[in-house]
Amino acid sequence: MRALRDDGLVETTGLRGADGVGAVTQRDGAGGADFAGLFAAAVAVQANAHCPYSHYPVGAAVRTAAGNVYTGCNVENAAYPNGTCAEAGAIAAMVAAGEREIVEVVTVTDGDRPGTPCGGCRQRIREFAGPDARVHATTVDGAVSTTTMRDLLPDSFGPENLPDA
Amino acid sequence: MRALRDDGLVETTGLRGADGVGAVTQRDGAGGADFAGLFAAAVAVQANAHCPYSHYPVGAAVRTAAGNVYTGCNVENAAYPNGTCAEAGAIAAMVAAGEREIVEVVTVTDGDRPGTPCGGCRQRIREFAGPDARVHATTVDGAVSTTTMRDLLPDSFGPENLPDA
Amino acid sequence: MRALRDDGLVETTGLRGADGVGAVTQRDGAGGADFAGLFAAAVAVQANAHCPYSHYPVGAAVRTAAGNVYTGCNVENAAYPNGTCAEAGAIAAMVAAGEREIVEVVTVTDGDRPGTPCGGCRQRIREFAGPDARVHATTVDGAVSTTTMRDLLPDSFGPENLPDA
Amino acid sequence: MRALRDDGLVETTGLRGADGVGAVTQRDGAGGADFAGLFAAAVAVQANAHCPYSHYPVGAAVRTAAGNVYTGCNVENAAYPNGTCAEAGAIAAMVAAGEREIVEVVTVTDGDRPGTPCGGCRQRIREFAGPDARVHATTVDGAVSTTTMRDLLPDSFGPENLPDA
Repeated sequence: MRALRDDGLVETTGLRGADGVGAVTQRDGAGGADFAGLFAAAVAVQANAHCPYSHYPVGAAVRTAAGNVYTGCNVENAAYPNGTCAEAGAIAAMVAAGEREIVEVVTVTDGDRPGTPCGGCRQRIREFAGPDARVHATTVDGAVSTTTMRDLLPDSFGPENLPDA
Repeated sequence: MRALRDDGLVETTGLRGADGVGAVTQRDGAGGADFAGLFAAAVAVQANAHCPYSHYPVGAAVRTAAGNVYTGCNVENAAYPNGTCAEAGAIAAMVAAGEREIVEVVTVTDGDRPGTPCGGCRQRIREFAGPDARVHATTVDGAVSTTTMRDLLPDSFGPENLPDA
Repeated sequence: MRALRDDGLVETTGLRGADGVGAVTQRDGAGGADFAGLFAAAVAVQANAHCPYSHYPVGAAVRTAAGNVYTGCNVENAAYPNGTCAEAGAIAAMVAAGEREIVEVVTVTDGDRPGTPCGGCRQRIREFAGPDARVHATTVDGAVSTTTMRDLLPDSFGPENLPDA
Repeated sequence: MRALRDDGLVETTGLRGADGVGAVTQRDGAGGADFAGLFAAAVAVQANAHCPYSHYPVGAAVRTAAGNVYTGCNVENAAYPNGTCAEAGAIAAMVAAGEREIVEVVTVTDGDRPGTPCGGCRQRIREFAGPDARVHATTVDGAVSTTTMRDLLPDSFGPENLPDA
């Protein structure tokens, strides 16, 4: 599913959602080092996931415009809807540290196919990211599906929809 | 923003998300009567929205494969994250009634531009809808933005990502 | 676990949370018929719960000040935090129908011990219920733990905490 | 609202929820230094809250059994239910760091009266705290309402309610 091309780009194929859509070629040229660092951060925090209900650990790392990295893992709850997704945790850490602009996201999951951010997390990322922000859904074993917020959450709902906002 | 074409289709233009993406032509031919009924149901329930915090009432109506319609409005909470979106309410009503297959959704909001379903609700719809399910984001004044789940939540996370599922 | 007292009250004992607190005497005298109806409604809707992840079906029924009953069941999601609790569904149905005052709640779960409303649902009920609203956590087999919102969510957060509210 | 007693305990009175319940005596003797540190951490992070919708900034700090402190602030979202509470952010930071046992929590809000944790956050704290964990709801100006998880979330729902858990 993954091949290193002559030009240094990593190309991932066959990584499609349940609905069979989505282009998934990773742009990893100049950003290679950046991706590697984010991926390593996401893998590290995935190990701390609290997921006794789903047994599905997720790690997430976000890089901000300032170049800093913040991480989170899923924190499940016995009452499921009260859980916190990995991306939400990473974003909370970012905001707590005083930053609010996401330029790149890596999520890491187990299994053969990367688990892309759920819709709720796409909405959470969108609050702090523009349409060009890159999102890499990966697996621990190295499968990578790269896209942008423009593709992940088209026609998004945002602050401009609200009155007086 | 909206014009009735000779062929009876309603075409909506300029209805794009904050990120400037998304095609929004409404297919409303043979399904015109269906849309009208769903729209009316969504408008009716919007009037009951509990939104003292956002002042942004939302109505939602879903049609199931069996042809039945279920509705919901947003139910906000003083502790904001505990609120329930309109689509979640409509889906809850559908499931409570014993149905689980959504084929069409209408949301209605105030303002000039339809508020599309938030990411969280796209995820909730996806649990019960295939990629071809149609989603119409509308305004009370008649603006309509029609798309499909395939377009709204590409590369979606779903049950098949989980272990043993 | 349940005994009918001379005064017509049903007393339930041994029904305590994980933390070993909480008084659980059911007032079921004049309200007996009311409870029976709410319980039956909650049991009926529990059968429709969408809970493929937890395998823990929950039914909820709320009675309003106007005397009407609304029901909901849990609607889980592959991305767990996007799920909707049974109580949230019942409340959404109530609000969608134009009502906003809860006086009594019944939840029903499987197992030996009633599953009380999670904290999130206590907050959701509180938005529409006063401290005297009665909450009966029950099991299909007839165990009943009755309390009030005053006891379930003391020192609660509410609209009056927010600015300008 | 706050008085130092002969025994060194700080007693807070009049700090009651909307429903008029809850005892609020702060045990602040030997733990005084601990409280001061947690409070300072919560105040610091509150300044970074992302709350353009509620204009109600919240800071939270949790102390773990290992003695470490983790913080979070509310991260609101244009689609309100997708927001993350301050306590959820602090807990996510704790779990991401590899810890899972909360012994003390401080929340800080503006206004005259401390905003206690919402029901959802009580449930989130409960996942990682025993009934004796202390929770201090405070205001920037120094009002303090101290209680325990036993009092805040009696008869709580937890992992033991779930099948096979």
